[in-house]
Amino acid sequence: MTRKIIVEKDLLEESRAEARDLRSRFHQHRIVCFNLVSSPGAGKTSLLEKTLAHFSNGARMGLIAGDVQTCNDADRLAAVGGEWVVPIETGGTCHLEPPMITQALEGRDLSAIDLLFIENIGNLVCPAAYHLGEDAKIALISTVEGDDKPLKYPTMFHNASVMVINKSDLLGLTNFSEEKARDNALRVNPNLTIFTLSCKTGQGLPQWFAWLEEQIRSAKDRP
Amino acid sequence: MTRKIIVEKDLLEESRAEARDLRSRFHQHRIVCFNLVSSPGAGKTSLLEKTLAHFSNGARMGLIAGDVQTCNDADRLAAVGGEWVVPIETGGTCHLEPPMITQALEGRDLSAIDLLFIENIGNLVCPAAYHLGEDAKIALISTVEGDDKPLKYPTMFHNASVMVINKSDLLGLTNFSEEKARDNALRVNPNLTIFTLSCKTGQGLPQWFAWLEEQIRSAKDRP
Repeated sequence: MTRKIIVEKDLLEESRAEARDLRSRFHQHRIVCFNLVSSPGAGKTSLLEKTLAHFSNGARMGLIAGDVQTCNDADRLAAVGGEWVVPIETGGTCHLEPPMITQALEGRDLSAIDLLFIENIGNLVCPAAYHLGEDAKIALISTVEGDDKPLKYPTMFHNASVMVINKSDLLGLTNFSEEKARDNALRVNPNLTIFTLSCKTGQGLPQWFAWLEEQIRSAKDRP
Repeated sequence: MTRKIIVEKDLLEESRAEARDLRSRFHQHRIVCFNLVSSPGAGKTSLLEKTLAHFSNGARMGLIAGDVQTCNDADRLAAVGGEWVVPIETGGTCHLEPPMITQALEGRDLSAIDLLFIENIGNLVCPAAYHLGEDAKIALISTVEGDDKPLKYPTMFHNASVMVINKSDLLGLTNFSEEKARDNALRVNPNLTIFTLSCKTGQGLPQWFAWLEEQIRSAKDRP
């Protein structure tokens, strides 16, 4: 196994250099970029649909939507809006890597957007290891997943700046405790910003949108 | 990236040889072994808790429970029963590999069990690539994950023999269509055996237990 680890370290250093280049490009265009990660089915695409609809007359959004197979997510998002939506079909790879982002951005006008969302592959493990040039990772969990997820996948919650708890409409129907989930997440990462919301009922979405607007404003004010 | 792929292929071949050894050991002891895979939070541990309780006076079960961090799952299972429960904490690795199983079985009496369940890491991508000596992979999804999961993670559903749809008590509360999930799964793998059940209400569990009993009997009848 040692051989594998050594080779991966080399690749990770290359990967980090490319992530830094991506980050410079985003900063140069005063774009704020988020890398959205979750288990399969937690609601990444639903949250992005709601966010696209909210910003339809406001901030200009670009989206990169990763899937192992199919372009279902990108199709769903393109139907709602955005300046552009680029699908990435990894064909088996369980996370997005910087070269995929660089390729996805080819021919895209970065000056046409204020906000870039990268929807990662549904996986709480491997995407934690890859920086894609984002300002922050946003880790999404849902109220049907178990409130110990931050303890079981600590690298992800440690590397994320934000945790979103989705499907608040199902609270009380499972034994998920919102309080325990928050406590567990803050044990792993005391600096997490946490939102609880429901993409289905809209509960909590105004706070999420307000926070995004603040991030977009901060990006514009960068020196 | 080419370097990485070549090295991983070598390791995969080593891995496959070790999986064949594990399989021989299980067959020699007339044990039936299942590799249970799902997204985080779909209910692997809950299904195993119900199964342990059901077999408390019947088939003798051994369990190997993988987690990236913590031994929460193994602790939950050990509290219910089983001949033995072995936790594997991978410390970052997003799937179980045959050497981890070999190590977990050290000092365990295989003649003391009829049925071995390996609870894999919550991840629908990487565990699909690893055979752990099991007779079958069982892919668990839940009714809150989206009915397109089999299309988005086809390797897993292609390599699995069984799909379990858990959380049937939440059907109708989300836009998950059981029919679409079944159709999508059978498009990827027409040979899948499919169960719909709820670990919370018990709905569908009798059919699951009956199927397991049949598998245990078949393993005893192996030549």
